[in-house]
Amino acid sequence: MAELVGNVLVGQSGGPTSVINASVAGIISEALNHECIEEVYGALNGVLGILHEDLIDLAAESQQQIRALRHTPGAALGTCRYKLKKQADFERVLEVFKTHNIRYFFYIGGNDSQDTADKISKLAQQQGYELRVIGVPKTIDNDLPATDHCPGYASAIKYIASSVRELSCDSEAMGQGDLVSIVEVMGRSAGWLAAGAALAKRRDHPNDPPHLILLPEVPFNQEKVVEEIKRVLKREKFCQIVVAEGLVDSDGNYVAADAKTDAFGHAQLGGAGDALADILGQSLPGVKIRVAKPGLLQRCAAHAGSKTDAEEAYLAGQAAVEAAIAGHTDKMVTLVRGDGENYTCETGLTPLADVANSVKKLPREWISEEGTSMNAQFLRYAQPLIQGEIPIPHDAGLPVFARLEKHRADKKLGAFES
Amino acid sequence: MAELVGNVLVGQSGGPTSVINASVAGIISEALNHECIEEVYGALNGVLGILHEDLIDLAAESQQQIRALRHTPGAALGTCRYKLKKQADFERVLEVFKTHNIRYFFYIGGNDSQDTADKISKLAQQQGYELRVIGVPKTIDNDLPATDHCPGYASAIKYIASSVRELSCDSEAMGQGDLVSIVEVMGRSAGWLAAGAALAKRRDHPNDPPHLILLPEVPFNQEKVVEEIKRVLKREKFCQIVVAEGLVDSDGNYVAADAKTDAFGHAQLGGAGDALADILGQSLPGVKIRVAKPGLLQRCAAHAGSKTDAEEAYLAGQAAVEAAIAGHTDKMVTLVRGDGENYTCETGLTPLADVANSVKKLPREWISEEGTSMNAQFLRYAQPLIQGEIPIPHDAGLPVFARLEKHRADKKLGAFES
Repeated sequence: MAELVGNVLVGQSGGPTSVINASVAGIISEALNHECIEEVYGALNGVLGILHEDLIDLAAESQQQIRALRHTPGAALGTCRYKLKKQADFERVLEVFKTHNIRYFFYIGGNDSQDTADKISKLAQQQGYELRVIGVPKTIDNDLPATDHCPGYASAIKYIASSVRELSCDSEAMGQGDLVSIVEVMGRSAGWLAAGAALAKRRDHPNDPPHLILLPEVPFNQEKVVEEIKRVLKREKFCQIVVAEGLVDSDGNYVAADAKTDAFGHAQLGGAGDALADILGQSLPGVKIRVAKPGLLQRCAAHAGSKTDAEEAYLAGQAAVEAAIAGHTDKMVTLVRGDGENYTCETGLTPLADVANSVKKLPREWISEEGTSMNAQFLRYAQPLIQGEIPIPHDAGLPVFARLEKHRADKKLGAFES
Repeated sequence: MAELVGNVLVGQSGGPTSVINASVAGIISEALNHECIEEVYGALNGVLGILHEDLIDLAAESQQQIRALRHTPGAALGTCRYKLKKQADFERVLEVFKTHNIRYFFYIGGNDSQDTADKISKLAQQQGYELRVIGVPKTIDNDLPATDHCPGYASAIKYIASSVRELSCDSEAMGQGDLVSIVEVMGRSAGWLAAGAALAKRRDHPNDPPHLILLPEVPFNQEKVVEEIKRVLKREKFCQIVVAEGLVDSDGNYVAADAKTDAFGHAQLGGAGDALADILGQSLPGVKIRVAKPGLLQRCAAHAGSKTDAEEAYLAGQAAVEAAIAGHTDKMVTLVRGDGENYTCETGLTPLADVANSVKKLPREWISEEGTSMNAQFLRYAQPLIQGEIPIPHDAGLPVFARLEKHRADKKLGAFES
C-alpha cells in the first residue's frame, strides 16, 4: 500500500451525543502522529460545511481544548441533518475535497451519515480520486448494525438509569399507594434507551423501580398495564414507569398524539408520557400522575456520562485514522466485544454499505415475557457499557466544556448554489 | 434552663429535595451527642406517620446508612402533603408525643410544614406539655422568609444550570439560525429556579445561553419575546430559553393550559414549555422548537448537586438540635450569610410564626430591565451557593443511595381514625 499524502477532513452529523466530541479528539490526536497527513480540517456543520467550504484548521486548536473535547457534549464542529440529494451536491463535495487535497475523510454519525459517507466514497472511486473514507459510529439510539454497540448510547442510558434511580427515591418518599411517576425517554422506533432504564434496578432486587418499561417493540395493552400498575401500587405504594416516545398501540399507531416528520422522513414524536398520563388518569381515578421528559438532555448529559463510553468513542476515532492510513476505505469502525467473562472491547471494520440505512433492533428475547421489563440477557449486554464516570472539571460550580477557536481555512471556490 | 430529658422525633414534609436527607443526618448525629436525648425516632411520611404512630428507631440504623443520607435524594423517612386540619388531628399528634415521650420535634419542610410545626408547638404549650419544636428549612423553591436561602435550592439550580449549559452545547451544534430550545423549570409563583439558569452563562459572556429567562414575575409579552428570539437567532444561530412553569400573561393568567389544585389549594401547573412552543411555532414559521421538561428530576438530581448545599443542610439539622437542647422552641433554623467579601454562612433562628405561610419573592431589582435575564445582583447571591460537587459513591456504574432498615417502634395506641 503506497503512502497517501494529503489532508484530513472530519465532520460530525446528526444528533449530538455526550461523547461524539471524544471521537473528534481521537481522530485529531491520531492524525497528528502520521507524517503523511499534512493538515487536519474540520467541516462546520457536517456536509453543509463541506458544500459551503466552511472548513476550520483543527491543528491550530490548543491541546487543552482538544483534550477537553473528551468530556464535552454537543458537537464541537457543529452538525446538521442535511441530506445530500442531488448529484450536483455530491460533485460539489468532491470539488471541495480536491481543492483542499482532502485524502482522508472521517464522518462521525448514524445510519444516514454513514450512507452519505458511502456515496461520497463511491463517487470518488468513480472519478479516480484517491480518497479514504472511514465512518465512525455515533448514536444514542444504538441502532447501527455490525457494531456491538454505538458510542453515545452508554452515556445516554447511564444518565437515564441514574435519573430514574434518583427520581425513584423521590417518588418512593411521596407515594401513599397513589402515585404514578412517568419518565418519557427518546427512542422512536426502538426501545434501546428505554431498556437502559432497567439498569436502575439493583442486582437481585426485581421489585426495584422502574416497575414498568413500555417499549416500542411491545404494543401498548392498556388493560394489562393498568392491572400491573395497580399491583405495583399495592405492593410499593408508588409506580415508576419509563415509556419510550415511540410507544405504539395494537394497531401500530403512536400513542403520542401528533407525529410530524423530519428532514429524513422520520416521524418526530413527543408526548408519549403526557398521552400515557391522560390514558392512565382515566383508568386510575384518584391516582396522582407525574411526567418528566428530559428530552434532549438525554443526549448531552455529560455530567452523568460513562467513562467507558467516552474512552471507546475516543478509541473509535483513533481506529478510524489507523484504518485509513493502513489503506482501508469505505468502511465504518465497529466496536467488537471480547468473548471472555470480563468485558473487553476492541475495534473492527465493516463496509459502509452494510451500515447505511439499516437498523439493529432490540432483540425480543432480551425483553421479559410479559413485555414490560428487561431480562438478564439485556443487563449482561448493557451493564459493562456504563462503567466509570467521566471526570469533568468544574469552575464556579459548573462543568467547563471545550470551546474551539475555529480558525477558518481560506475559501478557494465560489459560493455554493443549492 | 433545666435539662429536658426525653426522645427526639424527626419528620420530613412536602416535596423532597436532593439534600433534605442531609438535614436528617445532621439531626441524628447531633442528637446522639447529647445524654438528655434517649431515643431518636423518625416519623414515616411526616405528620401522617405521627397520626398513625408509624415511628422508626433511627439510632438502630447503621452509621454507614446515616452517612449515606448526606448524598441521598428523596426523603428517606417518607414525606407527605397531608395538612392537619381538625383540632382532633392536633390532639392526636400530642397524644402520640406524650405516649412516646417525644420532647424534641424537628420538622424539615417548607412554609406549610413550618405552619404545622408552629401549631403543634402552640398546642403543647397550651396543654403544658414541655416540647421543643424546631423547624428545619427545606425547599427548592427558595421562598421561605427570614433565611438567606433554603437548603435544596442550590442543588436544584446547579442541576438546572448544568443541564442548560450541556443542552446549549447540543443546541449550538444543531442550530442553523432556526432552532429554539426550551427548558421548562419548576416554580409556580416565583422565578427562583428559572433565575438559577442564569448561572450557566460564563462570567463576562452576556451572549452565552440561556438567552431568555421567562419568569412568573414578568408578564409574558409575546411580541417582545418573539422580537428578542429573532435577534438571538440571527446572532447565535440558536436560541436557548428557560421558562418557569408559572409564567403568566398580562392578565395574570397562566400561559400553561390547564391548572389544577393540590391538597393545599395551590395551583398545579405543567406545560408552560409546550404552551410556549405552540405560541412561538405560530410566530416563527420554519423554526424548529424543542422542549425539555426535567420535571421532578430538578429536586432529586443529587448527581449534579451542590456540596455547599448538602453541607448547609447537614449544618441546619445539627443547629436545630443544638437550639432545642439550649432551650429554644417554636423556631426555625435560618441560614445567615456573612457580610464579608468571601461567602460564609452560619445558622440563626427565627420564630416559626414568622415563616409559616409567608413567602419570599425574587427581588424585582435582581431581574434585568427588559425582564428576560438576571443581573449581577442575582449572580452575586446565587453563585456561592452552588460551589463544590457532592461526592457520590457509584456501584456498577450507578450512584448508590442510603436505604434505611426502618425498625418500627412498638405502637402503644389504638388505630387513628381520621
